Amino acid sequence: MAVEIERKFLLKNDTWRCDIHRSTRIAQGYLCTDPERTVRVRVKGDAAFLTIKGKNSGISRSEFEYEIPLVDAVELLKLCPQVLDKTRHLLSMDQHTFEIDEFHGENAGLIVAELELASETSTYPQPEWLGAEVSGDARYYNSALSITPFSRWF
Amino acid sequence: MAVEIERKFLLKNDTWRCDIHRSTRIAQGYLCTDPERTVRVRVKGDAAFLTIKGKNSGISRSEFEYEIPLVDAVELLKLCPQVLDKTRHLLSMDQHTFEIDEFHGENAGLIVAELELASETSTYPQPEWLGAEVSGDARYYNSALSITPFSRWF
Repeated sequence: MAVEIERKFLLKNDTWRCDIHRSTRIAQGYLCTDPERTVRVRVKGDAAFLTIKGKNSGISRSEFEYEIPLVDAVELLKLCPQVLDKTRHLLSMDQHTFEIDEFHGENAGLIVAELELASETSTYPQPEWLGAEVSGDARYYNSALSITPFSRWF
Repeated sequence: MAVEIERKFLLKNDTWRCDIHRSTRIAQGYLCTDPERTVRVRVKGDAAFLTIKGKNSGISRSEFEYEIPLVDAVELLKLCPQVLDKTRHLLSMDQHTFEIDEFHGENAGLIVAELELASETSTYPQPEWLGAEVSGDARYYNSALSITPFSRWF
């Protein structure tokens, strides 16, 4: 088990694109979207993972991740009611790595930046493109986006 | 992925106990009990597993099982609303193995025999202690017993 401590932000503009050092397409679905316990199937490039996360406590939650065969993940995604499609862009900055998720399909138009931290009180870089923090806004949980995608918010 | 083809039976009497060749205590909980996709955490002796099963089609369903660290399973069971406690007894007979689950706790009094088969039409031994088949009765699904235990049926 690991503890995931993560902040999530909107983006003010597109200038972050100049600093991308890697981009990977991700397909992920949820076998369970209960906020008490989410179960995610993710295909990331040619690797696949099964991830269980516990309930959020502030910006922290327990996380259990297991690599699984890609062929299994392809079958497991068929058991998920919806599959999210996004591109994850990585940006390194001051010993931190921003993961910027650009969503496609029914969530197209939504871009969020995530930052894993060592503790809830860790300081972090604040580039000029970093927008409002939405860590506590449950609408932005990927599990929630699989049920109520961004295109249906308005 | 595997396909699980399994028949489940009640037991007429206790004579099966003479033929047990191994018994193991099992603790298991469900991260998801949706009949479309169950996610089970199981501790069996000193080994632990995460198992996803798809929807039943007759007596068949897809099954994905991964061994996970015991310490993870202990934490994952804490995320499950209920934990089933049972002893699994194994009985070999005519190249088949009956798995007889004797439930404890809130499901005490319930004993069921399960038999995995190579196909839906496979023949199987029918010892005199084998009672009514309940394969299609959703109340006997372990996921259902974790929500509505046997002691609350009557």
